Amino acid sequence: MTTSLHALAIETFVSGLSDLSHLLDKGAEFAERKGFDSENLVNSRLAPDMYSLARQVQLACDNAKGTAARAIGKESPQHADTEKTIVELKARIEKTIAYLKGLKPSDFEGAAERKVRMDLPGDLILEMSGFEYLRDWGLPHFYFHVVTAYDILRHNGVDIGKRDYMGHVGGYIRPRKK
Amino acid sequence: MTTSLHALAIETFVSGLSDLSHLLDKGAEFAERKGFDSENLVNSRLAPDMYSLARQVQLACDNAKGTAARAIGKESPQHADTEKTIVELKARIEKTIAYLKGLKPSDFEGAAERKVRMDLPGDLILEMSGFEYLRDWGLPHFYFHVVTAYDILRHNGVDIGKRDYMGHVGGYIRPRKK
Repeated sequence: MTTSLHALAIETFVSGLSDLSHLLDKGAEFAERKGFDSENLVNSRLAPDMYSLARQVQLACDNAKGTAARAIGKESPQHADTEKTIVELKARIEKTIAYLKGLKPSDFEGAAERKVRMDLPGDLILEMSGFEYLRDWGLPHFYFHVVTAYDILRHNGVDIGKRDYMGHVGGYIRPRKK
Repeated sequence: MTTSLHALAIETFVSGLSDLSHLLDKGAEFAERKGFDSENLVNSRLAPDMYSLARQVQLACDNAKGTAARAIGKESPQHADTEKTIVELKARIEKTIAYLKGLKPSDFEGAAERKVRMDLPGDLILEMSGFEYLRDWGLPHFYFHVVTAYDILRHNGVDIGKRDYMGHVGGYIRPRKK
């Protein structure tokens, strides 16, 4: 199999972030229908020492752009964590998707084999290939924040299901040929 | 970049399931320390119409083995959903890891390009390449259940953090060379 780190990283992140934006829409609709301030959802969390929905969305975005950028040895754009509403969180997602879509397959040439190093406390480093970095660091962190955002919404009663989280597969659906 | 579907699928699933088994250990320790029956955790859920921790673990296992098997055109072993305790759930994970580890890189030859088709209701099918199937179906489903299991434990006060979910990166840590 020959595939590219670009195809794995960018498609995963863009799909996941698009689904996340849709999940936020469902949250906003729920707040509207029930007549409560949607900022209550934005500030909701699953445990008092866990991050809020807003922070989960910010971190999903930061993990996506940070992973892609680090894999190709670039700096990712900095986005200030100032979002307080669902509309603002959706805009943050849009900015992140635009950045990801601007990265070209050629930017990722050689990235799978190139070493990625990260400093850790205690004079330690984390050292892995670009492929391992995406598989074992970037993807699990990204999914952690997307799914926890889903779980916060779902825990609060928002009417979402797997179909909303998996919306990105719609493009693969076709009529069965008789 | 040349990488294999085997390297992407099997490593991801084995790492994630190993971390999940560790998270269950932390749940059992918490129950022991607080003096409650750990089955309360096993039956816990984030919403009354969401799956319990037990079911999340079963589904993480089923997604891992089912995705790997379908990608190579095999049937995966069936495991009955009878687990009622953390010990039993950890055994389910062990069985799944053993199956995954038994699959060889050569089993995945050509799997990335081969078409995968799934029947959907309403005379529809989902059709994608093996690589797309892993990236857009297998991995998001797998992470959904692993992270939701984490979130159920965390929501119940179990003392876990990202380090427990990311334990698989331990092998990449080394001292900084002076």
